[in-house]
Amino acid sequence: MITRMSSLFLRTLREDPADAEVPSHRLLVRAGYVRRAAPGGYTWLPLGLRVLRNIEAVVREEMDAIGAQEIQFPALLPKEPYEATNRWTEYGDSLFRLKDRKGADYLLGPTHEELFALTVKGEYSSYKDYPVILYQIQTKYRDEARPRAGVLRGREFVMKDSYSFDLDDAGLDRSYQLHREAYIRIFDRLGLDYVVVAATSGAMGGSASEEFLAVAETGEDTYVRSTESGYAANVEAVVTPPPPERPIEGLPEAQVHHTPNTPTIETLVDFLNQAGLGRTFTAADTLKNVLVKVRRPQQKEWELLAVGVPGDREVDMKRLEASLEPAEVALLEEADFAANPFLVKGYIGPGALQANGVRYLVDPRIVKGTAWVTGADKTDHHVVDLVCGRDFTPDGTIEAAEVREGDASPDGKGTLVSARGIEIGHIFQLGRKYTDAFEVDALGPDSKPIRITMGSYGIGVSRLVGAIAEQHHDELGLVWPRSVAPADVHIVVAGKDDTVFEGGERIAAELSRRGISVLLDDRKATPGVKFADAELVGVPTIVVVGRGLAKGVIEVKDRATGERTEVAVDDVVGHLIEVVGR
Amino acid sequence: MITRMSSLFLRTLREDPADAEVPSHRLLVRAGYVRRAAPGGYTWLPLGLRVLRNIEAVVREEMDAIGAQEIQFPALLPKEPYEATNRWTEYGDSLFRLKDRKGADYLLGPTHEELFALTVKGEYSSYKDYPVILYQIQTKYRDEARPRAGVLRGREFVMKDSYSFDLDDAGLDRSYQLHREAYIRIFDRLGLDYVVVAATSGAMGGSASEEFLAVAETGEDTYVRSTESGYAANVEAVVTPPPPERPIEGLPEAQVHHTPNTPTIETLVDFLNQAGLGRTFTAADTLKNVLVKVRRPQQKEWELLAVGVPGDREVDMKRLEASLEPAEVALLEEADFAANPFLVKGYIGPGALQANGVRYLVDPRIVKGTAWVTGADKTDHHVVDLVCGRDFTPDGTIEAAEVREGDASPDGKGTLVSARGIEIGHIFQLGRKYTDAFEVDALGPDSKPIRITMGSYGIGVSRLVGAIAEQHHDELGLVWPRSVAPADVHIVVAGKDDTVFEGGERIAAELSRRGISVLLDDRKATPGVKFADAELVGVPTIVVVGRGLAKGVIEVKDRATGERTEVAVDDVVGHLIEVVGR
Repeated sequence: MITRMSSLFLRTLREDPADAEVPSHRLLVRAGYVRRAAPGGYTWLPLGLRVLRNIEAVVREEMDAIGAQEIQFPALLPKEPYEATNRWTEYGDSLFRLKDRKGADYLLGPTHEELFALTVKGEYSSYKDYPVILYQIQTKYRDEARPRAGVLRGREFVMKDSYSFDLDDAGLDRSYQLHREAYIRIFDRLGLDYVVVAATSGAMGGSASEEFLAVAETGEDTYVRSTESGYAANVEAVVTPPPPERPIEGLPEAQVHHTPNTPTIETLVDFLNQAGLGRTFTAADTLKNVLVKVRRPQQKEWELLAVGVPGDREVDMKRLEASLEPAEVALLEEADFAANPFLVKGYIGPGALQANGVRYLVDPRIVKGTAWVTGADKTDHHVVDLVCGRDFTPDGTIEAAEVREGDASPDGKGTLVSARGIEIGHIFQLGRKYTDAFEVDALGPDSKPIRITMGSYGIGVSRLVGAIAEQHHDELGLVWPRSVAPADVHIVVAGKDDTVFEGGERIAAELSRRGISVLLDDRKATPGVKFADAELVGVPTIVVVGRGLAKGVIEVKDRATGERTEVAVDDVVGHLIEVVGR
Repeated sequence: MITRMSSLFLRTLREDPADAEVPSHRLLVRAGYVRRAAPGGYTWLPLGLRVLRNIEAVVREEMDAIGAQEIQFPALLPKEPYEATNRWTEYGDSLFRLKDRKGADYLLGPTHEELFALTVKGEYSSYKDYPVILYQIQTKYRDEARPRAGVLRGREFVMKDSYSFDLDDAGLDRSYQLHREAYIRIFDRLGLDYVVVAATSGAMGGSASEEFLAVAETGEDTYVRSTESGYAANVEAVVTPPPPERPIEGLPEAQVHHTPNTPTIETLVDFLNQAGLGRTFTAADTLKNVLVKVRRPQQKEWELLAVGVPGDREVDMKRLEASLEPAEVALLEEADFAANPFLVKGYIGPGALQANGVRYLVDPRIVKGTAWVTGADKTDHHVVDLVCGRDFTPDGTIEAAEVREGDASPDGKGTLVSARGIEIGHIFQLGRKYTDAFEVDALGPDSKPIRITMGSYGIGVSRLVGAIAEQHHDELGLVWPRSVAPADVHIVVAGKDDTVFEGGERIAAELSRRGISVLLDDRKATPGVKFADAELVGVPTIVVVGRGLAKGVIEVKDRATGERTEVAVDDVVGHLIEVVGR
């Protein structure tokens, strides 16, 4: 295929678009791949659409290779299935909702768990039908609060979402593993530098959820990785290695002190260090008890929960929420304190909590034999040397404290540093949430129903265009990996003679016959403009048909390395076939 | 590619779905191609998605062949461009409207004229940039009042919409012609029986608009065709051939008659025939004057319009509206009659109309020298022998009278009969409506702006799945044309022996290696079930690997003709390659 730039619907821009914050957005607009049509809505111009389709093709091939079957749902969906799973309300403002002419409620699908589950229930009935993996590559909608970075976070975007349906957990593990391997092949083929991070702490069963993040400073997602091992995880998934327990014997007795004017950890530590206790205290010696309330799914009542963390760390609400999922978490309101007068704000200690039956979970660092300064359940009073396992016994541990750079890596190798990435894939052992909601059962060999277990797996297909561009560019423009480039070869006709135009056309025609796609710059523009556009557009191989032609020579340039090779005209097609790898 | 039915996500149904009114809907559901997910929203199961994609590929190839360039817009669009062209309100209830989390207005795109015009304006500036044809194959949304017939009339559907941008009318003619020829190639390749009908009377300039209708009794669109020629047209586009004018000399003088109790044409004719006038009258001798009001675009004021038609025909409002487009038409209200007391309801005649300056357009049959019975502008009075060109002179003619079977064909050959079809394509010379709205200009060679002229061209891609099924089926199931079939060959393994299963696998593998796609029925089901499913699914060539295998013989059946051929095992792959046409 030959695409002639003289007629291609492409106008490159010399200036950066005003709203572009990240390189991929800037370059995809400047090089004429996309245009903004709405907040978070982009138009794919010809070259952009080709890159998108090339990525789709790689995803499709690898999904088909694991036996996944492609289907396609509507994007405009009735409310009812999403109401059955409570996602109609859970999604909050992120869901685009609308009414049809009859006033019936609809939504624009953000993901399709409900529809896939219902469809499998509709078609399949026997255990012999399973397992099955279904997928679609489809336009999805989420009303993001802050769409940004071009196609990296849009409100309308293309996703591959697949769902596995298995008879048992071992089957789900296999389907999960198949996806994990397919994703690795996909992202490898797309030339991405990425990490696979644990997305949950695994409290709910092994590697139940992992994210694939393209490494990028401009990424929205923060993760931590070890300085010394391959460990990488979402902050929510970091497991704190507990210190060894210590002997209790010989530890000083707990003592209540009058500590006026110590509303913060800092003022408390200062007070203690000036109180002549013969020791130096740090914030890490204090135990901060944060009160929240928790509501389990399908429950009406909220339940109090106290979370104890070392005073030098904040409670990270996202980590806390992840640890308590699927329960909801909320901060206490004044009414809650009023209803529980034993909670002395600022001075809450394990004593009153445990005396009043409040569930009390602590950071894993708070092990048996550690001594703490904490609230004495009385205004202006703290207790010193309150020993875990002697003076109080928590109901368990919880991952809720913030993770900091320099914390020990959970695998025992090195310390954690934080890094940023773009979420490009997510694999998740859903389990039976949706099959329970819709009663998706298979009739077993013994004629008893077997509740199906599901996995859900996503790839942000249109986001990948941005993620690849984010990793593959330089100061001159885009530098596409060959697997997704909008053309194999970019021929620049440099000169005004008919001979160079004819030479370019001839080479293009021959390459096209050999199945190599060519972007042919046959415009009546200066060589300078054409070279700049070739660098900006980023096809991996640039061929210059110019002055050398008279001497029988063509220049072939590698866009990524900048390496230039002079090739004899007669050899150029053979040379390019080799370079392109056909 | 081999698709094994043992694992294919396909369950055929023995029963017709309750909501299916037309054969294509019934069979696409029964054969497991589509499932209903919402009113007017369908899920494409694996085989259905393949047919849809095959159709898309044909459309894409032929669009690319005329130099059209593919791009892709979002479906979720901001209100503003559609407000600028007034389509935000004009679309009425057919538009899906919604608000985002900030309360901004959005719509789900029904067609994208506005966006294409704005995009071309954004990229192009010089006359040298033109012409250009852009297209997309995209999911569209219309809130149909009555979605029906499965994928034939959905609320979410796939369309190819393209738009041409030209500097002048001659260019638009060329772009239109290119599309017309591409559409003919597309629908021919898809094996469709179709007609190209004039969609407007051509009053606005030649063949400004044509529709492609797949011939189908179950179609929603009515058109007329000649009994003797290739003439076909939408009812709105039928041009009435005028009778010859007649000499006025010697015609009797007009006479006003007192005609009490003649509120209808029928009672009037009866009255006249009993009045002893020495002649017999029919309804066709009467002239009925229908009053409407008309408002031109961008005008505030309504203007009266009288439409005169022979009394034996009704005014067809759709034809009247089409004739007056882009002006709006409305029936008169009581207030209008009150404001114009010269309009004597039921007795309106040309006299009062012309005396009061009301525009008066008549059916083309009302030519000079024809005499009419019509209102005398006075209650209970009619005038007889009012002669056109002597007693009144209309301001012009208008196509507003109903078209009836048996009317003369406009091309002078035969008479009209009505037929039904499914609209599968529409080509339309839009002109400058949208480029005027957005001031899309090119800078001409003389540095003066040239207003661009547009064409708009649609193909209902997902509807085509239904239209093809509507034409290609029999009592046993679907019978796909080879160009769109979900597989090239359907191999039925008939028997329980390992040998037949191995034989089926071997043939499938060899065909697949030769690039032939195979649907392999390797299920453990009875031959009867498998044969029935093969007929239902409708792959063009069915191969039976069964008892004959022991004798070295395979049966090859043509799904369309039912013809069976016995082929030696060793020859079967070669035979099938020939049959498939590879």
